[in-house]
Parts: sequence; C-alpha cells; structure tokens
Amino acid sequence: MKSAVFIKPGEVEVQDVDMPKIEKNDDVILKVVRTCVCGSDLWSYRGLDKFSDGKKNNGHEALGIVESVGKDITTVQPGDFVIAPFTHGCGHCAACLAGYDGSCLNHSDNFSSNCQAEYLRFQHAEWSLVKVPGKPADYSDAMLDSLLALSDVMATGYHAARTANVQKGDTAVVIGDGAVGLCGVISAKLRGAKQIIAMSRHEDRQKLAKEFGATDIIAERGDEGVKKVMELTHDNGADAVLECVGSELSTKTALEVARPGAKVGRVGLPHASDLDMAASFGKNISLAGGIASVTTYDRQELLDAVLSGAIHPGKVFTGKYKLADINQAYQDMTDRNTIKATIVND
Amino acid sequence: MKSAVFIKPGEVEVQDVDMPKIEKNDDVILKVVRTCVCGSDLWSYRGLDKFSDGKKNNGHEALGIVESVGKDITTVQPGDFVIAPFTHGCGHCAACLAGYDGSCLNHSDNFSSNCQAEYLRFQHAEWSLVKVPGKPADYSDAMLDSLLALSDVMATGYHAARTANVQKGDTAVVIGDGAVGLCGVISAKLRGAKQIIAMSRHEDRQKLAKEFGATDIIAERGDEGVKKVMELTHDNGADAVLECVGSELSTKTALEVARPGAKVGRVGLPHASDLDMAASFGKNISLAGGIASVTTYDRQELLDAVLSGAIHPGKVFTGKYKLADINQAYQDMTDRNTIKATIVND
Repeated sequence: MKSAVFIKPGEVEVQDVDMPKIEKNDDVILKVVRTCVCGSDLWSYRGLDKFSDGKKNNGHEALGIVESVGKDITTVQPGDFVIAPFTHGCGHCAACLAGYDGSCLNHSDNFSSNCQAEYLRFQHAEWSLVKVPGKPADYSDAMLDSLLALSDVMATGYHAARTANVQKGDTAVVIGDGAVGLCGVISAKLRGAKQIIAMSRHEDRQKLAKEFGATDIIAERGDEGVKKVMELTHDNGADAVLECVGSELSTKTALEVARPGAKVGRVGLPHASDLDMAASFGKNISLAGGIASVTTYDRQELLDAVLSGAIHPGKVFTGKYKLADINQAYQDMTDRNTIKATIVND
Repeated sequence: MKSAVFIKPGEVEVQDVDMPKIEKNDDVILKVVRTCVCGSDLWSYRGLDKFSDGKKNNGHEALGIVESVGKDITTVQPGDFVIAPFTHGCGHCAACLAGYDGSCLNHSDNFSSNCQAEYLRFQHAEWSLVKVPGKPADYSDAMLDSLLALSDVMATGYHAARTANVQKGDTAVVIGDGAVGLCGVISAKLRGAKQIIAMSRHEDRQKLAKEFGATDIIAERGDEGVKKVMELTHDNGADAVLECVGSELSTKTALEVARPGAKVGRVGLPHASDLDMAASFGKNISLAGGIASVTTYDRQELLDAVLSGAIHPGKVFTGKYKLADINQAYQDMTDRNTIKATIVND
C-alpha cells in the first residue's frame, strides 16, 4: 500500500510499504478515507523537532472504514464508518473515567501515527473509535471535513475551552489562529462565551475566526497584543484563556492576559522553555490542559453538533490533496498557503 | 509602642517605635490582641530570603480591636473585634468578585506586614476586615487561637483545597505538615474528601493531621513518598493535591502524585526553580493556586465553622509567647519545637 514516509525536514515522500496487519487482539485495521496534516507535524517538517527514522509518518487524524478487527473487538465490525481519534483511551481507568482519555493510564501507546496512508493499524480500538452513522458516500464533502476535524483539531480546541473552564457569559481569549485555535473559537462559543477575542495575524484566519464566533480580533503579538487585550477587558484580563500554540511567547502571553483567578487551557504541544511560575502564583492563574479527550468529547457533544450542523469545524480545511501530493500539503501549510490540508484517498 | 523588628537572619528584636497612624482615608488602626509567626516569616529569619531594612517585621496575621478609622471607613468602628486578614481586597474588582481577593486588581499594597506589634495600621480596611461578634473576653483561649488562624493559615489551607478542586468522595494528598498543610487537611475534610493522605515527617504533626481528618500518613519524601502515594491510590494518583510548601521538591512531588486530569492547588510561596511544564501537559495536570482569598473564605464559611466548633484550626498553635519573647518564637518554629507560635499581647 501507499504511505507517506518522513524522509528529512522539508521532505515527505509517498512509498510502497507493507500493509498493516492485526498485531494485538484489540487492534483494528482501517481503510483510510480521509486524513490530514497537523500543525504539530510541521515541527519535524520544519526541522524543529526530531522525528524517529523508519517508514513512518506523523499523521494522527483519520476517517476510516473498518477493514478487519482483532479478536477482542466487539464494538465495531468490518464495513463500519469511524472517526479515528488520535487518542486511544481504554474508557475505564481513572483518567478515562474523569474525562481525560488523552492521558489514559492503561495505554502507554496512546497516540496514533502513520495515518497518512491507505491503511492504518489502530491500536486499542475497542473503546476509542467513534462510529459515524451510515457510509462516507452519505455525506457531503464539507460534512466529511467536519467529521475528520473530530479526530483531533475540533476536540483539541474543545479541550482548551474545557480546561480553561469557559462559562456562559465569559470573556475568552484564544491565542493561535491555526486550525486548533479556530476550533477553540468554535468551542468558546459553544460553551457560551459572550466575548471571544481571537489573537490572529492572518487575514484568512481572522475571517474564519469571526465566522466561528470571535467578537474581536487582535493582530498584535507580545506586549502590544497583551495591551490590546487589557484595553478590551477594561484592564481586568480574560476570564478564560485558550492557549493553542505552545510556544514560549504564546504561553507567556496567555498568563499575562488572564485575569486573577482565571484558567489557561493549553493544548499547543509545549515548546516553551521552563516557565516562571511565581508570577502566576501572584495572580492565582491556573495553568491547565494537555492532550485532548477526543473520544469523550466526540461522544458527549461534538459528533452531534457536527451532524446537526450546529458547528462546521471542517472549514479549517482550506486545501485538498491526494496522498501522492502530500509533500505539497506539508509545504503549503508551512508557507501558510493553507490553514489545514485534507488528504482525500480514492 | 513595642514592635518586633527584623534585625538580621536569626535575630528579631522588640523595639520602641512610633505609633502607627491613619495615613489614608481607608486605613484602620488596630490594637493587636493576638498575632503569630508564619512559616513564610522563617524564610528571611533563616537567611534564605532577603528582607527589606527598616523598623519592620514580616508579621501579617492578627486579631485586633479597632482603635481608630479613616474617614472613608463605614464598616467598622472603634471597639469592634476583628480578624485582620493578610490580604486587603477591595471587594468589587473582577478578581475580588471572582473570589480571588488575594489578587485584588485595585490594591497593589494588598498584603499585611508589621502585625507583630502592639498596634497595626491596616490599609484598605473597608471591605477586607472580618468582624467577629462580641469581644475577645467572650472567647476561650482555644477559640481565640482558631479565630487567629482565620487571618491566614486556615484560609490558605482552604485555598489549596479550593484551587485543587477537592470534591466529595475524592482522594486528596496534602503535601506539607506546617500549619498551612494541617489546615489543608481540615479543608479537604470540610469539602468532603474521602481519603486524605498527609505527607508528614514529624510525629506531633502526624498526630494533629490524623485528628484533623487525615486517613493516611506518609513520612517518606521524594521518589519514595511518590511510590507510597501511588500504592495507596491503586497506581492512579490523587484526584486533588494540596501543595503547602512551595519548594522545588514539594512541587515536583505534587505533580507526580496527581492522577491525570487532577488539579494541584499550591499555596506555598513558590521557591521552586522554573518548572518543566511538559510532563504535566502529558498528564493533563492543572497547576493552580496562589495567594488565598482570606476575607471571602472567612465570610463564606470559615468563621461560622470556627464559631460553631465544626473546625478547630487553632490547634496548630502549639506555642504561646509574649511579644517581648518573639525571637524565641521564631527560633522555636525554626527548630520545629513548635508548629506555630502565637504572640499574645497584654
């Protein structure tokens, strides 16, 4: 089968590799319908993170059709249409029961990879896969994109909003205008925030942020950006801050724009150096967040919200590619020619 | 009047100083009935923190009788018996309204000092002082100690429990067996924790922790202590962690014993170096906490709980001194001969 293979920074190639097969009793093999490129994939593509060698890719988001199942699998069967979350919770440990399946205590191999391929081995599938009614052919292209967003970015944006404890009537700041940040805007709105301030420098993303519910846009970064937030919040700072980048600057900004007692929900993979946590002590800021609870959120609320048309997270996919052209997808995201790239398999 | 004066590490002296006077319209002058020495005072006494020069002391906890009031004061009058919180919130900014008066947005001079004296100038007194019914003579010695605990340690322990979000039925770990940690045990119990694991190395404090509601005691620290907590929690970690020390080791331990998705409520003045926040991202740990909301908690729940005899935080005061003997009080706390020292004025 064809699979994207990470060669070196700046180069992702499609190669023929062995078909994945059932290795453990709770494995499922999926035929990948759609996959995509994540902002976090770009860290290694840009040479900023190391990526392990081998016939692998970073892809961890997919929609698929169940091809075959391990003998312990009772929840899905061949032919089922599923969202393949990037997390693989067990559903019954203390972490999963508390709604943190992204930090499942039973599965050390809790994350997807190699989704940028024709087929995918999905480990620990029994609880974690999310069934979608019907077949891919029953849905519009736009709806399929929104369903694909439920494998990561929409759930991750929601995790930022949940861990920032966005409440009805709140003022929320969303830092980052990547796909996750934009889904953070959707999530803040879904949870009832009254004022949603999106920190975004790019016109196309500002437009989408507004469409998703942002009431204010701040293009400035760093101290200037903080100043603007304080002006918009009568010098109080925000009730909730969604940190959707993970850089040192974005984390610092998040702590600075939070009002005393506010929660920062961070979902950007942390690339900050160590943080000075004394300043946040003085302001009583809570720094929360981490790996999203994809299966939990999809089942609780997000799948229904997508299927009913209440939210349209698929709009973050602004470029569509075939698997063969995946290097161009990576490059276009790196160059910010597209917000997020969908890979549509035949 | 007499006042304790910090001379140098290891030396606190009682000197004659000028009587404090009303300097601003929202000042109140208090005749100090009882004050005490705080664990945080010891950082400078032990030479670990710098203390500014001048005729000053670190004391920030007191019970007092109102002596005189500035012209904007409407809430208390001379003769009133009050708890003097170490925080001085305004009561109406976004921080105070959210229940974080320890991080009041209007008062940059939000903390007490110079309480170890016969009289005290209490700034921003209009909202922040907490009236106690009757007069000191109406109360037992034990009750006066419990009321004194409401000026800091009991409220600070409660802040750890609140920001760790201790819920009914939870397993809570309390790190630190100083007065604040012990009040953290009281608070975890008050909020309904089912299992309360106190990390304490000293026999007298272990005993008090058990009296306050601890179900388990762990004497080990560091990796050994973490291992014991994991054993007691079936390898899950705790639902809530009260970090009542502020050192690098205690903060690290707090993050390690928290189950995925748990909250660490930290109230120990942070003396940790910068923290590696990537590990807590993987576990979805929330690091919350900071300066307590003394006035808020006293009014909401704690004063009633003390007056009704539901809680007895005054038991943390195990040594009683006159102001003239305050250096001995500091020394005895440093040597751990007493958990917390009360200074009783004539």
